[in-house]
Amino acid sequence: MSKSNNQKLSIFALGGVGEIGKNMYVVRYDDDIVVIDAGLKFPEEEMLGIDIVIPDITYLEENRDKVRGILLTHGHEDHIGGLSYVLRHVNVPVYGTKLTLGLVEGKLKEAGILGDSKLHLITPSSEVVLGSMKATFFRTNHSIPDSVGICLETPEGIVVHTGDFKFDQTPVNNQFADLHRMAEIGKRGVLCLLSDSTNAERPGFTGSEYVVGENIKELFKRINGRIIVATFASNIHRVQQVFEAAMLVGRKVTVVGRSMVNVVNTAIELGYLHVPEDMIVDAEEINKLPSDKIVILSTGSQGEPMSALTRMARNTHRKLDIMPGDTVIIAATPIPGNEKFVARTVDQLFRAGADVIYGPGSETGVHVSGHGSQEELKLMLNLIRPTYFIPIHGEYRMLRQHAMLAEQVGIKRENTFILDNGDTVEIQNGKARYGPKVPAGNVLIDGLGVGDVGNIVLRDRKLLSQDGILVVVVTLSKQKGVILSGPDIISRGFVYVRESEELLEEANRIVTSTLNKCMSENVNEWSSLKNNVKEALGRFLFEQTRRRPMILPIIMEV
Amino acid sequence: MSKSNNQKLSIFALGGVGEIGKNMYVVRYDDDIVVIDAGLKFPEEEMLGIDIVIPDITYLEENRDKVRGILLTHGHEDHIGGLSYVLRHVNVPVYGTKLTLGLVEGKLKEAGILGDSKLHLITPSSEVVLGSMKATFFRTNHSIPDSVGICLETPEGIVVHTGDFKFDQTPVNNQFADLHRMAEIGKRGVLCLLSDSTNAERPGFTGSEYVVGENIKELFKRINGRIIVATFASNIHRVQQVFEAAMLVGRKVTVVGRSMVNVVNTAIELGYLHVPEDMIVDAEEINKLPSDKIVILSTGSQGEPMSALTRMARNTHRKLDIMPGDTVIIAATPIPGNEKFVARTVDQLFRAGADVIYGPGSETGVHVSGHGSQEELKLMLNLIRPTYFIPIHGEYRMLRQHAMLAEQVGIKRENTFILDNGDTVEIQNGKARYGPKVPAGNVLIDGLGVGDVGNIVLRDRKLLSQDGILVVVVTLSKQKGVILSGPDIISRGFVYVRESEELLEEANRIVTSTLNKCMSENVNEWSSLKNNVKEALGRFLFEQTRRRPMILPIIMEV
Repeated sequence: MSKSNNQKLSIFALGGVGEIGKNMYVVRYDDDIVVIDAGLKFPEEEMLGIDIVIPDITYLEENRDKVRGILLTHGHEDHIGGLSYVLRHVNVPVYGTKLTLGLVEGKLKEAGILGDSKLHLITPSSEVVLGSMKATFFRTNHSIPDSVGICLETPEGIVVHTGDFKFDQTPVNNQFADLHRMAEIGKRGVLCLLSDSTNAERPGFTGSEYVVGENIKELFKRINGRIIVATFASNIHRVQQVFEAAMLVGRKVTVVGRSMVNVVNTAIELGYLHVPEDMIVDAEEINKLPSDKIVILSTGSQGEPMSALTRMARNTHRKLDIMPGDTVIIAATPIPGNEKFVARTVDQLFRAGADVIYGPGSETGVHVSGHGSQEELKLMLNLIRPTYFIPIHGEYRMLRQHAMLAEQVGIKRENTFILDNGDTVEIQNGKARYGPKVPAGNVLIDGLGVGDVGNIVLRDRKLLSQDGILVVVVTLSKQKGVILSGPDIISRGFVYVRESEELLEEANRIVTSTLNKCMSENVNEWSSLKNNVKEALGRFLFEQTRRRPMILPIIMEV
Repeated sequence: MSKSNNQKLSIFALGGVGEIGKNMYVVRYDDDIVVIDAGLKFPEEEMLGIDIVIPDITYLEENRDKVRGILLTHGHEDHIGGLSYVLRHVNVPVYGTKLTLGLVEGKLKEAGILGDSKLHLITPSSEVVLGSMKATFFRTNHSIPDSVGICLETPEGIVVHTGDFKFDQTPVNNQFADLHRMAEIGKRGVLCLLSDSTNAERPGFTGSEYVVGENIKELFKRINGRIIVATFASNIHRVQQVFEAAMLVGRKVTVVGRSMVNVVNTAIELGYLHVPEDMIVDAEEINKLPSDKIVILSTGSQGEPMSALTRMARNTHRKLDIMPGDTVIIAATPIPGNEKFVARTVDQLFRAGADVIYGPGSETGVHVSGHGSQEELKLMLNLIRPTYFIPIHGEYRMLRQHAMLAEQVGIKRENTFILDNGDTVEIQNGKARYGPKVPAGNVLIDGLGVGDVGNIVLRDRKLLSQDGILVVVVTLSKQKGVILSGPDIISRGFVYVRESEELLEEANRIVTSTLNKCMSENVNEWSSLKNNVKEALGRFLFEQTRRRPMILPIIMEV
């Protein structure tokens, strides 16, 4: 692989910087573009009514003939959840490991584009040529099987992207992280490392998934009533361990919750989950068994209001509910922002009479993170020994912490680049510097609409959510200068109308007198009339209620 | 104090059970009612547009001639923040310690009812006679000075209410919790204990405030640039320690943020904060000092978007901003629900170039809780040795955990009562049982409106916030069966109109054809016309966008 002098390497993110999720990194050399991951994120609180958020792929659309492919590191939503949207606009080859592609296929099928997609199965020992670049892979540990890191050989040097990772020294299924391959890559010399920063704030090492399995077994041995376990559906290692614990104590398992059922089925089909056939029974069957023979494996570890666990707790699940004597194990920690939902679900479970084993103070060790802590991040840096370093995956403070860790292990401070979405690092002749920005950011998806909800619509939703709306309808004869009918005031989300009749009557009088005054002064343009009504009514309502509802005057002329 | 046989003691909460904040407990004996605390809580996420939530005081209003007084345990918002609303409706004597009343006075003044209020200063050694009951007090440790627990002697026996508390063995200002008085009360025999459950999930002991002070001093010695400390304004002990650390290293302090300025002034005035006059300088002055002589003491430890810290980080504060070289110490942990706000503020501070010392992984110990952990809760139970136990203050799971702790120290399971708001415990002749419910619950305050926003208004706000609203205006001649003008469609919060012209034109056609069809079929009632428009348009929009905006048809007739 040769290179001329004006060719250069660019590295940047279209999503996933300074945020959790929506991961999409791009490596470009000359006219070849390689994309790593295509994730989604769930909306921030202020993105009212938005379903999901994906990266802005304008850059890929503008350079579609140069995009050689999308490499997937693993099958979590924040890495593959945007893929169906991306492929609709830029239909390029996609490379992923078996489980990752298994999960992707489900999504593309749902989106109706599986037939048109070009999916390529890789293993950790595959080689993929992408124009002037070549990708190889190395196995990592993470909270979903079949996760890989990427080694991208470019004419300018080697770029390594870790994906999400931890170093689990006792991994479930004995799928060890490929330390030897990482060491080998490091020894060859790495130009630039992009490494997962999610747990850069946490000192020490992240615990092994194996320990969680042992703790779950211990709990199963001690519990006499029914056992309900809620965890992330995609954490197949943990799901495997729940089945093993159930087997150990002679219990059957029923699987509830849409995503848990989907993932368990996919994982069994593809050979990632090993369960004797008669272990799994359906909800009707399990209700016939004695309590001490029952395990219910459920979604809802994040307290999602519509999840199976929450519905069971509220007694609104079709087939199952929580009863006194049940023990619920929540084998997960809340994702930031979900703390309140989880707390409410725990409250409901207690109220329904269950014992609940969960987060703080439980000290039972039924969850470990899928991301490496500070010592593991330093280990990765020391294995790969890059010249340049770009901390990825995580909010800004985590990227900063990761940069400090890099400095501790000897990466020069000026060789670390903390990027925002769209910031580029250009490397030419071994020298890195910031390059020109590329378009990047959030694309909001609301229902079928992609990107049609922007700041104005969100601002209106915010206003409407705070104090509601008043629609003022009035018919005028401008010629005669009189009100023919109305004003009628219709409100939604402002006050309970039946108890606020006086207020609304007074509002009515104010609109009437405002319009009469305008017309007597020959203020006749619609926009002035509307503005006068808005102002007078807005002022009155604020004085009376300290609220500022949206006011929508509709003035008809006959 | 004698008692006849049909007289009994009732204990219940009007607010604060199964939630954090809004605390209000009631003890009634015969025709005498004593209220303990009158707090507010901040709205849950789904209470759109609501400013604060207070307890439903219908019960007090219906029994106003029997209410002998309100006893305040300490000056936090969740214990005094509802007082001005309560006193407007039930103006009874209020009893509190010096600092508590100092903070209450500010609030009542703002509400314009200070002159009409009956405030009575107490000390920990006061006795207050309230009809057939007598209240005495005992000093506790908490994250605000001048906190007390209450010992209420009733003809049926002694009821103890702890207020919020911890046991701090090395309290700042040497204000020790009155262990001897608690022991003495316990020895006399206590009928019922109501005890703070906030930290019932936490094993061990809560750390001492003193340790925080030492750690802050250590940090101050090490830091060279400007120091910004954000903490709760009302934690006067911590504020005192920040001043002491500043003094130690020869720095001046400027105080920013409305509530911090208010509390610091009140606390200095009342003698709870001891600061040499020349230590405090204003923001203009401090900007003239060298970096290593500056401390900025600020609000914003919860990442509140309008707080001084957040504004400084965003460079939108009038006088101060964050600069590279600054160190920001966030001496607080996020209150549940605020995690995201705090995380964002930390990100912004890092982006502005500051070093930030905050929560996870910092291991610097710049915060301790104001509430006792499990060992302290057990200590309180063992000191007071009550016959009956009511865990108070905290969400349901915390009350449950506290009940389990009580069982561990020998309170019989059947003698613990976990109440919901409005549930009553009646004790007569030494026997306790559940009594009839009293009215209780949430009163939502939006602007000046107290209780005028209910479920219907909130449901509309929720709908409006998700997908916005479409107003459809059309003028008909029913006689002729034709549309005279319109339909005009006005949308807010639905789609960005300029980019959705086709969709809205098609929507227009659908409304027109729906109305024409109705009129041709002689469907003429307004309600039917409106419903038909709503249905047809709603179906069309859902098919096209998968959204369900609110649709408001306005049909005028000429």
